[in-house]
Amino acid sequence: MHKFEVWAPFAESVSVQVDGKRYPLQQAERGSWIAEVEEAQPGMDYGYILNGEEPAVPDPRSPWQPNGVNGLSRLLDHSAFEWHDKTWQSPPLANAVVYELHVGTFTPDGTLDSAISKLEYLKELGVTHVEILPLASFDGKRGWGYDGVALFAPLEAYGGPDAVKRFVDAAHSKGLAVINDVVYNHFGPTGNYTGKYGPYITESHKTPWGGAVNLEEEGSTDVRQFFCDNALMWLRDYHFDGLRLDAVTAYIDRSAIHFLEQLADEVKVLGAQLGRHFFLIAESDLNDPRVVRAKEGGGYGMEAQWSDDFHHALWTVLTGEQRGYYADFGTIEQLATALEEVYVYQGQYAEFRKRHHGRPVHDVPGYRFLGYIQNHDQIGNRALGDRLSDVVGKGKVKIAAALVLTAPFVPMLFQGEEFAASSPFLYFTDHQDPQLGEAVSKGRLQEFTGFGWSPDDLADPQDEDTFLRSKINWDEVKQPDHAEILDWYKKLIALRRSNPALIDGDVRSAKARFDEEAKWLVLTRGSFDIVCNFSNAAVEIPLARVGQLVLASEANSTVQDKSAKLSPESVLILQRP
Amino acid sequence: MHKFEVWAPFAESVSVQVDGKRYPLQQAERGSWIAEVEEAQPGMDYGYILNGEEPAVPDPRSPWQPNGVNGLSRLLDHSAFEWHDKTWQSPPLANAVVYELHVGTFTPDGTLDSAISKLEYLKELGVTHVEILPLASFDGKRGWGYDGVALFAPLEAYGGPDAVKRFVDAAHSKGLAVINDVVYNHFGPTGNYTGKYGPYITESHKTPWGGAVNLEEEGSTDVRQFFCDNALMWLRDYHFDGLRLDAVTAYIDRSAIHFLEQLADEVKVLGAQLGRHFFLIAESDLNDPRVVRAKEGGGYGMEAQWSDDFHHALWTVLTGEQRGYYADFGTIEQLATALEEVYVYQGQYAEFRKRHHGRPVHDVPGYRFLGYIQNHDQIGNRALGDRLSDVVGKGKVKIAAALVLTAPFVPMLFQGEEFAASSPFLYFTDHQDPQLGEAVSKGRLQEFTGFGWSPDDLADPQDEDTFLRSKINWDEVKQPDHAEILDWYKKLIALRRSNPALIDGDVRSAKARFDEEAKWLVLTRGSFDIVCNFSNAAVEIPLARVGQLVLASEANSTVQDKSAKLSPESVLILQRP
Repeated sequence: MHKFEVWAPFAESVSVQVDGKRYPLQQAERGSWIAEVEEAQPGMDYGYILNGEEPAVPDPRSPWQPNGVNGLSRLLDHSAFEWHDKTWQSPPLANAVVYELHVGTFTPDGTLDSAISKLEYLKELGVTHVEILPLASFDGKRGWGYDGVALFAPLEAYGGPDAVKRFVDAAHSKGLAVINDVVYNHFGPTGNYTGKYGPYITESHKTPWGGAVNLEEEGSTDVRQFFCDNALMWLRDYHFDGLRLDAVTAYIDRSAIHFLEQLADEVKVLGAQLGRHFFLIAESDLNDPRVVRAKEGGGYGMEAQWSDDFHHALWTVLTGEQRGYYADFGTIEQLATALEEVYVYQGQYAEFRKRHHGRPVHDVPGYRFLGYIQNHDQIGNRALGDRLSDVVGKGKVKIAAALVLTAPFVPMLFQGEEFAASSPFLYFTDHQDPQLGEAVSKGRLQEFTGFGWSPDDLADPQDEDTFLRSKINWDEVKQPDHAEILDWYKKLIALRRSNPALIDGDVRSAKARFDEEAKWLVLTRGSFDIVCNFSNAAVEIPLARVGQLVLASEANSTVQDKSAKLSPESVLILQRP
Repeated sequence: MHKFEVWAPFAESVSVQVDGKRYPLQQAERGSWIAEVEEAQPGMDYGYILNGEEPAVPDPRSPWQPNGVNGLSRLLDHSAFEWHDKTWQSPPLANAVVYELHVGTFTPDGTLDSAISKLEYLKELGVTHVEILPLASFDGKRGWGYDGVALFAPLEAYGGPDAVKRFVDAAHSKGLAVINDVVYNHFGPTGNYTGKYGPYITESHKTPWGGAVNLEEEGSTDVRQFFCDNALMWLRDYHFDGLRLDAVTAYIDRSAIHFLEQLADEVKVLGAQLGRHFFLIAESDLNDPRVVRAKEGGGYGMEAQWSDDFHHALWTVLTGEQRGYYADFGTIEQLATALEEVYVYQGQYAEFRKRHHGRPVHDVPGYRFLGYIQNHDQIGNRALGDRLSDVVGKGKVKIAAALVLTAPFVPMLFQGEEFAASSPFLYFTDHQDPQLGEAVSKGRLQEFTGFGWSPDDLADPQDEDTFLRSKINWDEVKQPDHAEILDWYKKLIALRRSNPALIDGDVRSAKARFDEEAKWLVLTRGSFDIVCNFSNAAVEIPLARVGQLVLASEANSTVQDKSAKLSPESVLILQRP
């Protein structure tokens, strides 16, 4: 027996087709339809027939789409999986080292099961939390995952529902927490059947993807519950420890209880029921501390948010790039501000945005913000998908790592960053609709040739080779140049994890002195001084206090009393004795 | 000499035409244009010529439109007016009695100068704050004022800029504070030239009036400043004490600093500079205490908001009406909730809205909410513009007054309510564009015939008679039936103003007992019990404590020990001895 329940206020009649047979649903309150079907069993394929229109279409809450997003849904019994993590508790996000990975390119096979074989490597690296790019089903076999349409059904190409459970179970057995990336701001452009069922989308507001998700108009109660239930599913049925919420800036919600607050409340209740610590991380470029402030303080209660200001400030100082939104960054002073105060834009006028932006963070601790120098977006949205290590030399790569891993933020690495992987992370798609595929290919080409790139250098997102080129080459790990970077990352992670002063997350404990002209910066965190020379000349940097050398990116740098002589593009970490 | 400065990022060239002569403006930063014109003097007509296109168009910040919104602007010297309110301070809004009036219908002449002659009457009534429907210039001579387009220029039909100053000065001389109603959520449909100058409006969001005001996109810094400067002008140059912000629900603003918060900040700074208490009152149906919560508590810092829940709860109990949004109200229990907790909808599902709505108020005091049984919208948006006194009998009119004037909210009356004026308040317009005028007339007709009204009963908004019929007939004040109501209001106002227990504004000090079946409610505020019989039968109401009779709407009601016998549709006010 299975009880079918679907929210379909747009429908005048609803039937469910199960294993080839049809059963009518009865209308319940507020546009819900219900039927108990005695014959329905886990593993059977099903779909809904709305207003008598055949063929049956997938369930918006389908737990499994074994034949793609346009195929029938399949019933799944979550209780059938045997878990081995009964006593598992995730370590606190506040002292985490997060590692972002994309299943399809993380290993040669590109599946969750093959990713399991890399968990030991991540553990040895010192990672505590693995964050996976979206797992929800999208149209096609390759993609970043942000075009998901069957949000309750893990992508079959990655191994489907049971593979997700095997991966999370294996990670937990190694002491690693797992974060899923979920997209609640839009549906992908093809394979989205929700519009047949109800007002999931409103045309009252425009977003980069078209109409906004309906969070505040008629029917929004049920739309919000759809997304909340999705979050609860990943945490309850797949044992994820937390979720990363894609681009919450695109939520448009004037409700007295903002959708993020509701989500945080529901996740908190589930955690209380199950006796576990769950957390939510928002991607937000609002520079608004309300996102991470506690509910009691009028905030939305996210555990943390991604903060691009630190990335942009560091990236522009390292590379000198000034294109696009990098135009609003570029000084060491801004990097110092990011380290001390999180947001660089705290209400100032931002030239690129052509408006004032942000507000001060004040009392919110640093561990409510993730800090990174690479992530899927910041690499993948570049014309060539090139990494920091492709843009600057080894010295600056090491400076970046040192700052990310000693900053007051929760550090996040992107797959391969830790050994300066040579593989790019390109924008790749596998749209099954030929017209859409061509439009995406052309759009990408036009965008970047418009910025002056040669078409010959640009990869076609729809070309499978673009996906294959983005795969990590694990053989590199053993090659000396790469191994040197890996060693540097491991030492920094070990330093961070063994020193509470580096993980206390109090942004006010981060002080940065700098010289814009001479191009140096000293970050002070507790007893540690991180001394950075961004210049391509050797420089002598005055120190505020004496310190013992803990780590050096270059053997030639020296420390004498209250000054340090640094080689070009190098970094030292000193500790007050 | 006058320095012309105009924000016109859409323009490629800007000249100003002053007194028939042309002067070019120089481009300054961020789309601003500037010129100092030696010959320009107050009283001269001017307009801007954008991209060389004649004729000159009005200034978006025009201080004076003597020839209508499509005519030239006129230079105005605010320092020329002689004020008599140098030592004026407005009384606190927390213990105010607000009186809402519409200049055009408040007196036979319909001007600000003729309204001055009624100030003594308002003072004797016990009013402390006069709130005026919008004064900003709109197209035509008659209208409610919510279609303003020249937001810095007081409507010439009301007497123009100097008449506003004479009115405010006269009010202050009588000890009355004055509130202006400002509309920052849209511009009127005709006579709006801002679209030629810059991105005041965005099509990214839809509102009931079309695209939303641009509060968060490119150029929004200057758009927000336009509205903030407008608010500051009314307070600084016209000496208003506060502003009522129309329908803030229609602001769409994801900025870290919400427009309302910015506005409150700027108004606070001006008050500090001038040594005066200014305040902002928001019209909001968000049921979100953030609107009135202090900035320090994560709120937007409005001094108060209109709260329709109390109105709707009381109106439906009195009239039994269930049309439209009244469907979500109708029980005495909801009225009790409104009295005790401000919002009836605190997160429950609202059938009319088809979604969950609101959140609890908790710690926000009652004086942050205005309470009323009549206002321009609640009367004027009815098909016949009829008042409570046209819908129910004298007894219920008196009950309503008693509850409004003893509730924990800041009470607000609508012109004529205090003597049960027989004049309706109809929807009237004077659109100069014949097509728009016809569309408005037809739209109104269709809307209400759709609800079952006969076209013969419905007034045509464009017909001047509709406006004339809405004028207050002051002769009624002396007629016995009307004088009886006026006397009741005066007694209630006097009672409220002389008893701190009734103005302390602590919603938690309001307790309401009720019997849904027997149709009675007892509101307890400090030592007062307001005993209401909504039923058309006499009823005996048990009292929680003995009390002395303070006011009775009917002579036949009696109090004996711990019970009160009330005539049908009557109210008693008792005080614990």
